Amino acid sequence: MNQNENVRIKKPLVHCITNYVTVNDVANALLACGGSPIMADDIAEVGEIVSESCALVLNIGTLNQRTVESMLKAGKTANEKNIPVVFDPVGAGASALRNETVNKLLRQIQFTAIRGNLSEMSYIAGVEANTRGVDSNECDAKNDAVSVAKAVAAEYSTVAAITGAVDIVSDGKRVAKISNGVADMGKVTGTGCMLTGIIGAYIGANTNAFEATVAAVTSMGIAGETAFNSVSNKGTGSLRVAIIDELSKIDDKAIARLGKIANEE
Amino acid sequence: MNQNENVRIKKPLVHCITNYVTVNDVANALLACGGSPIMADDIAEVGEIVSESCALVLNIGTLNQRTVESMLKAGKTANEKNIPVVFDPVGAGASALRNETVNKLLRQIQFTAIRGNLSEMSYIAGVEANTRGVDSNECDAKNDAVSVAKAVAAEYSTVAAITGAVDIVSDGKRVAKISNGVADMGKVTGTGCMLTGIIGAYIGANTNAFEATVAAVTSMGIAGETAFNSVSNKGTGSLRVAIIDELSKIDDKAIARLGKIANEE
Amino acid sequence: MNQNENVRIKKPLVHCITNYVTVNDVANALLACGGSPIMADDIAEVGEIVSESCALVLNIGTLNQRTVESMLKAGKTANEKNIPVVFDPVGAGASALRNETVNKLLRQIQFTAIRGNLSEMSYIAGVEANTRGVDSNECDAKNDAVSVAKAVAAEYSTVAAITGAVDIVSDGKRVAKISNGVADMGKVTGTGCMLTGIIGAYIGANTNAFEATVAAVTSMGIAGETAFNSVSNKGTGSLRVAIIDELSKIDDKAIARLGKIANEE
Repeated sequence: MNQNENVRIKKPLVHCITNYVTVNDVANALLACGGSPIMADDIAEVGEIVSESCALVLNIGTLNQRTVESMLKAGKTANEKNIPVVFDPVGAGASALRNETVNKLLRQIQFTAIRGNLSEMSYIAGVEANTRGVDSNECDAKNDAVSVAKAVAAEYSTVAAITGAVDIVSDGKRVAKISNGVADMGKVTGTGCMLTGIIGAYIGANTNAFEATVAAVTSMGIAGETAFNSVSNKGTGSLRVAIIDELSKIDDKAIARLGKIANEE
Repeated sequence: MNQNENVRIKKPLVHCITNYVTVNDVANALLACGGSPIMADDIAEVGEIVSESCALVLNIGTLNQRTVESMLKAGKTANEKNIPVVFDPVGAGASALRNETVNKLLRQIQFTAIRGNLSEMSYIAGVEANTRGVDSNECDAKNDAVSVAKAVAAEYSTVAAITGAVDIVSDGKRVAKISNGVADMGKVTGTGCMLTGIIGAYIGANTNAFEATVAAVTSMGIAGETAFNSVSNKGTGSLRVAIIDELSKIDDKAIARLGKIANEE
Repeated sequence: MNQNENVRIKKPLVHCITNYVTVNDVANALLACGGSPIMADDIAEVGEIVSESCALVLNIGTLNQRTVESMLKAGKTANEKNIPVVFDPVGAGASALRNETVNKLLRQIQFTAIRGNLSEMSYIAGVEANTRGVDSNECDAKNDAVSVAKAVAAEYSTVAAITGAVDIVSDGKRVAKISNGVADMGKVTGTGCMLTGIIGAYIGANTNAFEATVAAVTSMGIAGETAFNSVSNKGTGSLRVAIIDELSKIDDKAIARLGKIANEE
């Protein structure tokens, strides 16, 4: 498989309408994996910007009423032009505004992939969840991540990725369980947002969205664990820097060698 | 004292309406000390978000008319529900908009703690100040920080924290002088904003706001000086990373051992 | 020449209305080189804030209709008060909104310096360009950077700086070609934005805008290559940190010793 090489060769322009907390890390993660980020959120330009892009990433981490309109405009334009759209429903379940926005985006935009933690994806699947904050990496024990991923994928004809202790990617039929990554990644804000950005780059540079998402999720997990090992116990500031370092060096060989992927039908 | 342990056990959700310059560092500092950040600033959701939080942090570093309304809404909701609110009056004294906003927030919201540098706190105390920029660490020689802290604390029934070469915390009666920290912290943007975020976490996880604030201020000073020693003369980029590293490793033992706190009545 | 020393002595307050992707790095770069950043974008305060500043930096990386109005207000106020204004036309050529904004700002504000990559500056010069994304470091082979820089400088009575493999600075007559820097700087988002911020500080603390811009551009190139050598192949996360480190340590001696500047008339 050469998903990462395709990103580094194609250098896909990825248009992000994303939150202001982690936007810098998303841009640097995109550059690190071989993509090219462009952040633009004014409704007067998002149609044009997305039209020149290889993928669109929508992230509602710090949504507001102005940017939600821009997300709708950009997403619909992307759909018209067959440009893949990736969604990060940050904090779905945490407020009525987030829930309404998630529902509106899901109704009006066809997503190629959706990535969230278990509580966010449980909200989308329509099963009871317990969203607390936005950086939770703890699995909601009540729900089974495989079932939730399959349900989201089937309901929205998309690739669903649920990140946690074990990451799950499903297209509704196939399921990949990825066991890379370390718990301390949850102590660095934005590892989820960065991954969603990277999924945009991988999908923008490859034809098979399921396989591209599996490769992107695996690359992030490997980057996290390699980074964790390299900084040992220096702390979470160094871990954050090292994650970007590892993303900038990873290639398909490393993904093949270090990836812990179990495939199921 | 176990203020830091309480943060790490309770993992308080801290709702921040803060500036876009330092927001990523605030989120990472909150995660590092054991808290859980959530940034949300749309007026349609701040009431709900703050209601689920253990503390609210308002920071006017890049205020605009939209987010000031959200701050008022969030602050009033927090007051109704007895959720502590911490205020960072960045740049108070530097423009009419900042001054009017500071006055409006002080009139309508009861703050559990207010943290600023001497010129910002002097503005709040109503004594002549000289605010220049937002990263000033230089003490305004005209004003005495202890008097200013006591005045702010008494006038607004709050815990006042003034950071500088020596940090002052007062509840109007008690005064703690904390001599940790190094001057080079002023060469990293956002050390003040990070501290205000951390104060939110400490107050959200502990019952005594004065003692929680003293512990938070001391932990930041220790993190700064330990970081400074560990990076030696590598530069301010490394110092910033190391401050987060140290915050992620600090515990109550280190605070007790390294803290340079002088208490006065 | 003592341009850097002047920044460190004068500590110029630099008012930035800039994008939320790289704003933290811009602030830290300004502090590192000796300046003092203040970010403020509400139209109700930008006139006051800029009036107290030594320079204004306008960067349209994530422009929106609200902040464009603030940029116009701040720029006109700066012009009235003879405060230098530096412009970073991020993504000029990439959307109608960006093009209209660039044209509006150029018509209504006199800039002391304009910095961009070759495609952005080609747009301003009115020659055919091919803007793709915002992090492109690749020279657009069709255009000659020296001619473009001279044209922009002459047309807008400004100092034009075009960054690329070789950086070009011109005031319309003089041309400096600066060969510092490394290609990997293009893998870190915001190196261009940081440089524009630094140009603001150098111009704010020195009288000759052309020489100040040459010194600022050279300092950034040296910081980039020194940082690249110091982190060797650790990755782009470490490179970003090391660039700020080097900016915080650079002085005029290093600029004189390591700068690769070729002057032409």
